[in-house]
Amino acid sequence: MIQTFDVQGGPELGRAHLPLLREQLKSQGLDGFLVPHEDEYQNEYVPEALDRLMWASGFTGSAGAAVVRTDNAVMFTDGRYTLQVRAQVDGDLFAYERLESGGVAAWLRDNIGGGEVIGYDPKLHSPKAVKTLGEAIRKAGGTFKAVSENPIDAAWQDRPALPTAKLSVQPEDLAGESVASKRDRIAGILKERGADATVITAPASIAWLYNIRGGDVACTPLPLSTAIVNADGRSELYVNPVKLTDEVRSHLGNAVALREESDLEAGLSALSGQTVSVDPGTTSAWFVDRLQDAGAEVLAKSDPVALPKACKNTAEIKATTRAHERDAVPLIKFLHWLDTDAQSGDVDEIMTAVKLEELRRETGVLKDISFPSITGAAGNGAIVHYRVSTATNAKLSRGSLFLIDSGAQYPDGTTDVTRTVPIGEPTQEMRERFTLVLKGHIALAIVRFPEETTGSNLDVLARHALWQAGLDYDHGTGHGVGVYLGVHEGPQRISKMPNSVALEPGMIVSNEPGYYKTGEYGIRIENLQYVTEAEMIPGGERKMLGFQNLTLAPIHRDMIVVEMLSNAERAYMDAYHAGVLATVGAELDGEVKVWLQRQCAAL
Amino acid sequence: MIQTFDVQGGPELGRAHLPLLREQLKSQGLDGFLVPHEDEYQNEYVPEALDRLMWASGFTGSAGAAVVRTDNAVMFTDGRYTLQVRAQVDGDLFAYERLESGGVAAWLRDNIGGGEVIGYDPKLHSPKAVKTLGEAIRKAGGTFKAVSENPIDAAWQDRPALPTAKLSVQPEDLAGESVASKRDRIAGILKERGADATVITAPASIAWLYNIRGGDVACTPLPLSTAIVNADGRSELYVNPVKLTDEVRSHLGNAVALREESDLEAGLSALSGQTVSVDPGTTSAWFVDRLQDAGAEVLAKSDPVALPKACKNTAEIKATTRAHERDAVPLIKFLHWLDTDAQSGDVDEIMTAVKLEELRRETGVLKDISFPSITGAAGNGAIVHYRVSTATNAKLSRGSLFLIDSGAQYPDGTTDVTRTVPIGEPTQEMRERFTLVLKGHIALAIVRFPEETTGSNLDVLARHALWQAGLDYDHGTGHGVGVYLGVHEGPQRISKMPNSVALEPGMIVSNEPGYYKTGEYGIRIENLQYVTEAEMIPGGERKMLGFQNLTLAPIHRDMIVVEMLSNAERAYMDAYHAGVLATVGAELDGEVKVWLQRQCAAL
Repeated sequence: MIQTFDVQGGPELGRAHLPLLREQLKSQGLDGFLVPHEDEYQNEYVPEALDRLMWASGFTGSAGAAVVRTDNAVMFTDGRYTLQVRAQVDGDLFAYERLESGGVAAWLRDNIGGGEVIGYDPKLHSPKAVKTLGEAIRKAGGTFKAVSENPIDAAWQDRPALPTAKLSVQPEDLAGESVASKRDRIAGILKERGADATVITAPASIAWLYNIRGGDVACTPLPLSTAIVNADGRSELYVNPVKLTDEVRSHLGNAVALREESDLEAGLSALSGQTVSVDPGTTSAWFVDRLQDAGAEVLAKSDPVALPKACKNTAEIKATTRAHERDAVPLIKFLHWLDTDAQSGDVDEIMTAVKLEELRRETGVLKDISFPSITGAAGNGAIVHYRVSTATNAKLSRGSLFLIDSGAQYPDGTTDVTRTVPIGEPTQEMRERFTLVLKGHIALAIVRFPEETTGSNLDVLARHALWQAGLDYDHGTGHGVGVYLGVHEGPQRISKMPNSVALEPGMIVSNEPGYYKTGEYGIRIENLQYVTEAEMIPGGERKMLGFQNLTLAPIHRDMIVVEMLSNAERAYMDAYHAGVLATVGAELDGEVKVWLQRQCAAL
Repeated sequence: MIQTFDVQGGPELGRAHLPLLREQLKSQGLDGFLVPHEDEYQNEYVPEALDRLMWASGFTGSAGAAVVRTDNAVMFTDGRYTLQVRAQVDGDLFAYERLESGGVAAWLRDNIGGGEVIGYDPKLHSPKAVKTLGEAIRKAGGTFKAVSENPIDAAWQDRPALPTAKLSVQPEDLAGESVASKRDRIAGILKERGADATVITAPASIAWLYNIRGGDVACTPLPLSTAIVNADGRSELYVNPVKLTDEVRSHLGNAVALREESDLEAGLSALSGQTVSVDPGTTSAWFVDRLQDAGAEVLAKSDPVALPKACKNTAEIKATTRAHERDAVPLIKFLHWLDTDAQSGDVDEIMTAVKLEELRRETGVLKDISFPSITGAAGNGAIVHYRVSTATNAKLSRGSLFLIDSGAQYPDGTTDVTRTVPIGEPTQEMRERFTLVLKGHIALAIVRFPEETTGSNLDVLARHALWQAGLDYDHGTGHGVGVYLGVHEGPQRISKMPNSVALEPGMIVSNEPGYYKTGEYGIRIENLQYVTEAEMIPGGERKMLGFQNLTLAPIHRDMIVVEMLSNAERAYMDAYHAGVLATVGAELDGEVKVWLQRQCAAL
């Protein structure tokens, strides 16, 4: 079993560790220290050895920060974690503050005393954050000091080892492009920018660029490492040699110099006098400081790998299509189980996650889950970032809805799918709101749009039907997805927030509108789809793009109020279900196949 | 007649004036000089005395710039003006370049020689532009030098006088808020920002803040002037005293200090040591330079008047509603004329603009047109920014479409409306594309949306039907509109481009999707509408906003393919037309009234 359901974090961590941290502050001459959630690699899933915020406070949420001073401490979280932070972080040791509206910087400006020295680890903050926080501290009369050793690392006894998973080669028939060709393309982008080199600090970018995968963090096959790529095509990969195999060494060949991570500072210094492209969103202040110290000119530009990585080539699309077809089999078996055995009222949320992971493991090629399954029964389904533990595990009781958002990592692709199913008889309100969500999902599945269109332009299509009913949902509509890489990747996204990245052929995005009724139920319908060039139609004048669906699993017909669908929406649903049956039907038999045929019949 | 149809600008201007300008460059020790289209007030309609680009080159388009060097000159325009620039600017004197992709800065970087001194007038460029242009010139080894006297002003013989139109008071029953209350609100915004004062350089902001109107530029009742507003409520208005009347002096009272424009530099110097909020989008580098020289701290923030001005109060909405009802009478008489007499094939574009202006003048209260009417017959209708002159004047021939985009300034409101009508029998293609545009227009008229929604979020609704047919249009969907003020105002807009300004109750926006078939015809349907709080509906959970329509004029029924409309779209059209008839019908009689009744019957 990959997913764990243990209660994690908790107030005893802060109780045990704050005194140790404060001793370190004292010995380093600091009056306070900033503890962000982020690690050195801006990982979504932070390895335990780098989860310094959990160690210091007990908090396990995906966004947060603490300020620890010698005589008090403050914990900052956003609105999603109001309840969780109170359960996990000792209120006698930490004051609770919100990350929104000013956040840490505003708090520092208003609360730090003159002469106070606040430390920070430059490897954990972006240059922009260092600037904002530093200005706030200086405004309060304090000093903001970069530490050379993180006091938490110094205080942390029995710290887990840093991960050292072996790297593997991502075969070229799956990657679709050689490392040499990728390096040439990145070199071309650097030249266009007038840059001599770039520092790549995002492990997913390194994985894509070198056609390698790692195993250093949960849910994503990331190789924790850093690369310097030069505009002449040469590059250096700074990685713990323990992770290297002969196969990987031979795969990378002579054009990629392999270096110890401890040589990174020297590698940066060697860029003296050069113009170096650095992504201010993914690269920490430490890199910028080292480059500037060395006399390099820093060019703040996006990671040059991000966009090429996002635009999947034909081989990657073919690979992930296969992965989605494979994933459909356990998924449909699971949905059948939900619709039969799990209707008893005795099944609980953990059992559903276990069942689905077991079914996926039966494929024989499951590498990992792509994120911990969100298994929300009734009111838990309305918690958008719900993660079940033994402390919250609820039964799937009759007369409720059950929402499951899950995904798998296969060697050829990454899946992410959400279905919402009735346990017992759904109410008319549940069905109507499900249908409004479905209308949004369909609008975003069938839309045709011109080049240069961004996900921000399209987002409203997924919300329009809900809006007209006075409803909405408080999360984005779609995120980028990798191919046997991150289940969340940029630079594209579909959301209300401004985003200037145009959707381009090959980009995979999720399509996941929802509706959440606090304390009662949650609805979300999610497929992955990728951008394609749309066929020209009679009378059409402009090149148009569209989406091709990847995810294959029926959308529960008992939840759909057919009269609320337009003819076009109904035609889409029928064609979608016919496609699911045609593609996956042959892989199934017996009761499951009969069930699928019924689920996929025309509405 | 307000609108003129004379051919303006032209190559003889550049031929006559370039030598004069070059003499000035020589005497000021400059190797080149930047000539932007913008004037000191960032006006949309530049007074002739400030249209330095037209004087130097002959170009009259709304966006452009020139670099004039001692031995050559370059003219930059965008894609809209590719043809116009060749007709108006002598190709022997100016090279033609595009404003897009790098524009002036990239050209300077690549073309300026080492040691060259390029001058600029800091009153005509934003601080950001000065930075970008200066970096480009320095990269090329040149020097970027602020001039103290614009060499064009020095060279310009027989320069028209600067406008000195008398100011008038905008009555409080139309403005809906006293000057004192507005000053208090702006002072409150400044305090929130931690600013001691702001410099207001946008004449429309000054007009709104002081409840005054002017007459210094075409089409908009702007008072060219500058204001300094302090966080304690005091303010200073720098204006040519010739424009002041006793009524205006008494209206402004003691709280507004009236100063000569020549005292402005001293007024800025007096802000020494203070924090001054300055809008980097509307305020030129000259102000920032003066403030920084005086030792003020410059805070780059939006004009604090812009948002309050955009959110119209009840009195303003009532006033502009009345203005739109009044404007509907000449508009409907005009549309009737187009549908009868103007079907002959003998009417030309200029005659239509004259006819409409005459009808509007019959209201007895027309102050101005809100912009020169766009009267596009057949292929001219496909030129989005078409402006008819005696050189282009085309006949409204049978079997074509005619597009007219026009507006009026009344003391109580500003209108802007576009209708597209058939001359003779429209083709099925014309009707189908018209109906696609109409579907977009309706979608944006009836949408309900939550708070915090921006115009960028909504834009796709107006394009969706066109996109599904492989079509689109290359302009924004909606702009803000003032009340007896600018027909184009911010900060809100409805467009594909990112915009983070949420739509708020009282904001007026245009709703004007279109379709353009080059050389054949143009279609645009434009109403003004304002944001309102939508009624709660059964089952609705969130506060929703919507739009209330302002513009009253039938949309030509012969252009609508009724079968392409959904039931909801058809119901909207019938209700809209019934509303037009109910509101305006009583003001009309005879043939026009019968025609309107027929036009407004249910589809």
